[in-house]
Amino acid sequence: MTFLEKLLTASQRNHSLICIGLDPEIERLPAHLRDQPNSILAFNRAIIEATADLVCAYKPNLAFYEALGPAGLIALQETLRFIPSHIPTIGDAKRGDTDNTSRQYARALFDTYGFDAITVHPYLGRDSVQPFLEYQEKGILIVCRTSNPGARDFQDRLVNQGQAHPIPLYEYVARQVLEWNTAGNAGLVVGATYPEELQHIRQIAPDLPILIPGVGAQGGDLASAARYGTDAAGERAIISASRSILYASNGPGFATSAAEVTRSLRDAAQQARHP
Amino acid sequence: MTFLEKLLTASQRNHSLICIGLDPEIERLPAHLRDQPNSILAFNRAIIEATADLVCAYKPNLAFYEALGPAGLIALQETLRFIPSHIPTIGDAKRGDTDNTSRQYARALFDTYGFDAITVHPYLGRDSVQPFLEYQEKGILIVCRTSNPGARDFQDRLVNQGQAHPIPLYEYVARQVLEWNTAGNAGLVVGATYPEELQHIRQIAPDLPILIPGVGAQGGDLASAARYGTDAAGERAIISASRSILYASNGPGFATSAAEVTRSLRDAAQQARHP
Repeated sequence: MTFLEKLLTASQRNHSLICIGLDPEIERLPAHLRDQPNSILAFNRAIIEATADLVCAYKPNLAFYEALGPAGLIALQETLRFIPSHIPTIGDAKRGDTDNTSRQYARALFDTYGFDAITVHPYLGRDSVQPFLEYQEKGILIVCRTSNPGARDFQDRLVNQGQAHPIPLYEYVARQVLEWNTAGNAGLVVGATYPEELQHIRQIAPDLPILIPGVGAQGGDLASAARYGTDAAGERAIISASRSILYASNGPGFATSAAEVTRSLRDAAQQARHP
Repeated sequence: MTFLEKLLTASQRNHSLICIGLDPEIERLPAHLRDQPNSILAFNRAIIEATADLVCAYKPNLAFYEALGPAGLIALQETLRFIPSHIPTIGDAKRGDTDNTSRQYARALFDTYGFDAITVHPYLGRDSVQPFLEYQEKGILIVCRTSNPGARDFQDRLVNQGQAHPIPLYEYVARQVLEWNTAGNAGLVVGATYPEELQHIRQIAPDLPILIPGVGAQGGDLASAARYGTDAAGERAIISASRSILYASNGPGFATSAAEVTRSLRDAAQQARHP
């Protein structure tokens, strides 16, 4: 089963476009967990068990595990074992390098950790993304328009590319990804904080899965993300929230609070999405 | 001591602009090492011991360690301990994400692994690079013009930015990095395979350290890299080679062969550089 098939199945089964970013920060964990030896794993496990019937995907961000050194990556491996096999996993890694190096990153993320999909940087061009795209069962979500203020610095620059009118770099990236997508396993990352750009990109790429971070702590609007990010069938949007779910409360009931927030995000997205 | 001071000191002491990319691939290790439990570490250690008086820096590429899972990152930590403390280490990680995530990557690379410098992606803009730049003693080498064929796909796009003439995106990135460099700890990554672009960027950024990969297996010309990549004093170029050194021979004498190749690269670069 490809990433896209797995995503659509999980999304339909759980009636959900919501993805939880599993980005644990030791300092923000509930006090009763913080000093346990396997605090990260215990935290992730509780979050997963409380929310597995409410999400379309889980998205661990590699940075939060790498910050803890090799032990953090062992916690990541163990976390992935607790995610039910019918829910797709997205490794938010934002890798991208020359082909020989990208091949090693692909090995790490797909073979060693076993993610169903990953996020990738576009800046080095097609041959830097190709080693990832060769994993035809996996999803390759290419960073297009990000949710941060600095996204404007380069992604909004107008580029000349032989057309009558210059277009923003992020749009040019989206159009290139469509050309690269010969195996049907590419997708895009577009932040929820710029709904107009999201709408525009969905028009350009009607069939690609779009990962949409930035809902919650970063202030992106959930209803716009669901309305403009989904395809004509109301699918293929992966709306990701992290801090607003993980740290909804920090007492012993943190997992119940996380599930409540996830449920309300899910329901709001269901209401807003087409058709 | 800042990264730049450490780099200049090591470069002057060893009369060298050469950096060795420590990118071990199990399948390419000498046969007598391949089946040892700590083969990567034994290999790296032998390379380091044979070349520590010939280089200005070592540059482990994270991908090659990550491909081996948590055990690979333990081998990386142990490798870093064998690098003499007066030789700077560059973590070739090409990270870059929204600020909260970049902060975790900075923690991983600077605090957990202790690299003196790292490579960073520009695509997410200033606020994505800022958490790295805040480590004022560390070097932040921002990817500008890469050595691969696909570099053309986006980096050569002409961007409009209110000037009379549009400029290529890579040049715009270089000019933005100059503005971001308030602490004097930024640098650029420019591939050796495009000497004209390297010369152009050196003119724009006369004082920035420039990491120049692509010599050797990727076909970049060493003399051009040394001539066009150095500053007015013949310094601040970090010319990186990996496969051509690491796998110069694969018998028991591999480290001696690696040192010989490094020495000839070093001498050729010394001849070509200004003044």
